[in-house]
Amino acid sequence: MEHVSFPPLSRFAICGGTHGNEMTGVYMVRELQKKKLEKAGSVSITSVLSNPRAVDVCKRYIDKDLNRCFTNAFLSAPITDLTPYEVKRAQELNAQLGPKGSEDAVDLICDFHNTTANMGLCLIFYTIDWLTLHIYKYIKSKITSVPVRLIQLDLPISEAYSLESVGKHSFAIEIGPQPCGVLRADIFNIAKEALDLTMEWIQKFNSGSSFEGDAVEAYNMAKSVDYPRDPTTGELTAVIHPQLQDNDFKLLQPGDPVFLSFSGETVKHDGEELYPFFVNECAYYEKKIAFHLARKITLAIPSISVTRD
Amino acid sequence: MEHVSFPPLSRFAICGGTHGNEMTGVYMVRELQKKKLEKAGSVSITSVLSNPRAVDVCKRYIDKDLNRCFTNAFLSAPITDLTPYEVKRAQELNAQLGPKGSEDAVDLICDFHNTTANMGLCLIFYTIDWLTLHIYKYIKSKITSVPVRLIQLDLPISEAYSLESVGKHSFAIEIGPQPCGVLRADIFNIAKEALDLTMEWIQKFNSGSSFEGDAVEAYNMAKSVDYPRDPTTGELTAVIHPQLQDNDFKLLQPGDPVFLSFSGETVKHDGEELYPFFVNECAYYEKKIAFHLARKITLAIPSISVTRD
Repeated sequence: MEHVSFPPLSRFAICGGTHGNEMTGVYMVRELQKKKLEKAGSVSITSVLSNPRAVDVCKRYIDKDLNRCFTNAFLSAPITDLTPYEVKRAQELNAQLGPKGSEDAVDLICDFHNTTANMGLCLIFYTIDWLTLHIYKYIKSKITSVPVRLIQLDLPISEAYSLESVGKHSFAIEIGPQPCGVLRADIFNIAKEALDLTMEWIQKFNSGSSFEGDAVEAYNMAKSVDYPRDPTTGELTAVIHPQLQDNDFKLLQPGDPVFLSFSGETVKHDGEELYPFFVNECAYYEKKIAFHLARKITLAIPSISVTRD
Repeated sequence: MEHVSFPPLSRFAICGGTHGNEMTGVYMVRELQKKKLEKAGSVSITSVLSNPRAVDVCKRYIDKDLNRCFTNAFLSAPITDLTPYEVKRAQELNAQLGPKGSEDAVDLICDFHNTTANMGLCLIFYTIDWLTLHIYKYIKSKITSVPVRLIQLDLPISEAYSLESVGKHSFAIEIGPQPCGVLRADIFNIAKEALDLTMEWIQKFNSGSSFEGDAVEAYNMAKSVDYPRDPTTGELTAVIHPQLQDNDFKLLQPGDPVFLSFSGETVKHDGEELYPFFVNECAYYEKKIAFHLARKITLAIPSISVTRD
């Protein structure tokens, strides 16, 4: 595989509070802003509390999930009196950190999220980006206290709906389990470690270090599964089975239990072998998702270094 | 100690959704209502979704915490256009299940709650009530999958602020850890087991069984501790220390770590030996409570049986 090179990363944006009740990112950004950290070695730092109104009331969002508002369609939608707050805020953030897909966009965006699912530390990315994959490889090699995994959402960048897609390079960090509205020291410390390692990697990259190629495993999103529901009321008729609960990324085989109904019946997995994740995530009840399913893939990544002027 | 007797329990109210995002009670009540369970042996059953508007939007409350609205003062407050929804709802529930302190009140109320704290199964009660303590003893003797504990909030009944205080006898069931807005099978099954055991005890009691006296341990609420906060913004400057997190009911001794600041300093417990509970409960951030502290006490309970006509 060829060696690849990219220009130095001169602008790095660290975002949190994109979901106002995911406390790790909220406090990560607040602490950075208290320290007035604007420069670290060769890189300028912007820290952004993405959805301040939702943070104020400790809700995921005010009118609409902000982290679904960064498609090209939303970012170019005309603003009227009826435009949801989060669509307006997405356009503001796109002006500040983008515009998405342009030369003016910041070099790297990292957005912090929490989940109630037992997912450990995950980096989430869209299309293949060798630089992001190298940062993942670096973080994974250093963090040993929790599993570190890579999730790929296979969408063209124009349809990529989340905040970090505005950057030239980007990833979301998802850490759990942590209840909404709660700040846990263990989860915060893992997030802080991942951020420090990202900074460390950027300094090495910018100063000319070369990083060897490798192969990394990723979970490639395949489909979503909803809870069994009462067709008239929409209320759940079953919950995640105890054997699936907290077992994110444990291979689901045909016949494995996935739901337990209130009347005591077990619903079994009846498709192909796939890996469940975001199992029983709080915010996905309204999205009609009990869990996602992924295929495990291997990505060969080339060696990388900064472009020499 | 003397033997005590009470009239049969002919009316039992099972409540859930008093906090609209505590899902165990919401689904416990929904399932009872689907089954149209109105009578079980010698007892009539009422199941009540206490705060339906909060349940609809999966929030703890709409205007005001409903489970702080059952003091005599709130229950007798005149209703105006400015009265919070939950105060009106508390008066409705008092009319349906009470009136509090009267002969017309239902015999027993059990209200289901969840916490994000690692508290296992707790029964919470106010003033000493031998009948409630016998139900606790019965549940504790049968449930082995999680710790079962008893919490006493020492308030006169007129100041007792929670829904169950409307009943002649009453307790709240608090189960955790479970994130707000999430329904876990393991937590639901423990709640269901506690409810089934309560029903079983009532049937035995009503049919003339005598229950022996005993001594039970209880945690008597002593005081609350807030998070260290920035005095101007109110934002946290420290989180629950990893050594305290998830260690509800583990004796705190002077010098034990309780908070970890964002700058890495440990704050230590400096008072008397006490037992922490509701450690890092989501809903208590706004109440300025990081955890409660309790003294362990022993309550001698007399033997009990139904009053013979």
